[in-house]
Amino acid sequence: MTDDLQFAPRGTTADIEEGTAFAPKFDANGLITAVITDIASGDVLMVAHMNAEALQRTIESGEAWFYSRSRKKLWKKGESSGHVQRVIELRVDCDQDALWLKVEQNGPGACHTGRRSCFYRAVPLGNGSAVTLEFRDAEKTFDPAAIYATPGDK
Amino acid sequence: MTDDLQFAPRGTTADIEEGTAFAPKFDANGLITAVITDIASGDVLMVAHMNAEALQRTIESGEAWFYSRSRKKLWKKGESSGHVQRVIELRVDCDQDALWLKVEQNGPGACHTGRRSCFYRAVPLGNGSAVTLEFRDAEKTFDPAAIYATPGDK
Repeated sequence: MTDDLQFAPRGTTADIEEGTAFAPKFDANGLITAVITDIASGDVLMVAHMNAEALQRTIESGEAWFYSRSRKKLWKKGESSGHVQRVIELRVDCDQDALWLKVEQNGPGACHTGRRSCFYRAVPLGNGSAVTLEFRDAEKTFDPAAIYATPGDK
Repeated sequence: MTDDLQFAPRGTTADIEEGTAFAPKFDANGLITAVITDIASGDVLMVAHMNAEALQRTIESGEAWFYSRSRKKLWKKGESSGHVQRVIELRVDCDQDALWLKVEQNGPGACHTGRRSCFYRAVPLGNGSAVTLEFRDAEKTFDPAAIYATPGDK
């Protein structure tokens, strides 16, 4: 890790929306939302969160780091599974409170359940009173039990 | 609005991850993160939040509703601009705390700054100490001043 990255102060709305200063807005827990898409398919693989250090490490290394809210720790994607995400492009949104990472996903999948994407179930539309999820693109591409030493340790 | 949708209780990890009961996890503020992608290009258009009512209205109507954290109100995307989002598919992730909406974006763009997507700036990778954003796909596709009665009223 080199010297700390200098994130810009938040500034005016014009600074944030039309400027070139990177002023990410971390929430009350010090986190920013990151959407991860597959550079090949364009599909959303996962949604995760970064704290300032995870963001800095991602920028410096070009590999995705996150902060696990459940495990309360910095986490390099693929550190257990080998399913590292190489960041091809990192974008920030208009108000700089969300990030979009286009990644090259190493290995057979991003989801700790053993699937390519975490989004393997659809919510049917047009229902007025009840919802039953429908599995889509839900085939398992790897066996999580064989990959992860600890359940849930992504 | 018909009767309230019944969201399932959260249940066990197996229920949540491998079941067909829709048990969305709202955060401490009653919100869930929604990623919106363009069904045509696959690009991420925006990241927004839904409360239970916004989610219910989205499911019932097939058009995207959100909850504005800044304005503290329910908000139908396109209510001011006409830039309605027709939801082609709604998915939920493994732990059911994030939603992915694939939408048909009506009108020239989704971003209140006048652009197609909110993600019009890239964060260069590999930098150790400073970051200057780079505009990408940042051409304005409409004039927000001509569309929105109130600045920021998306």
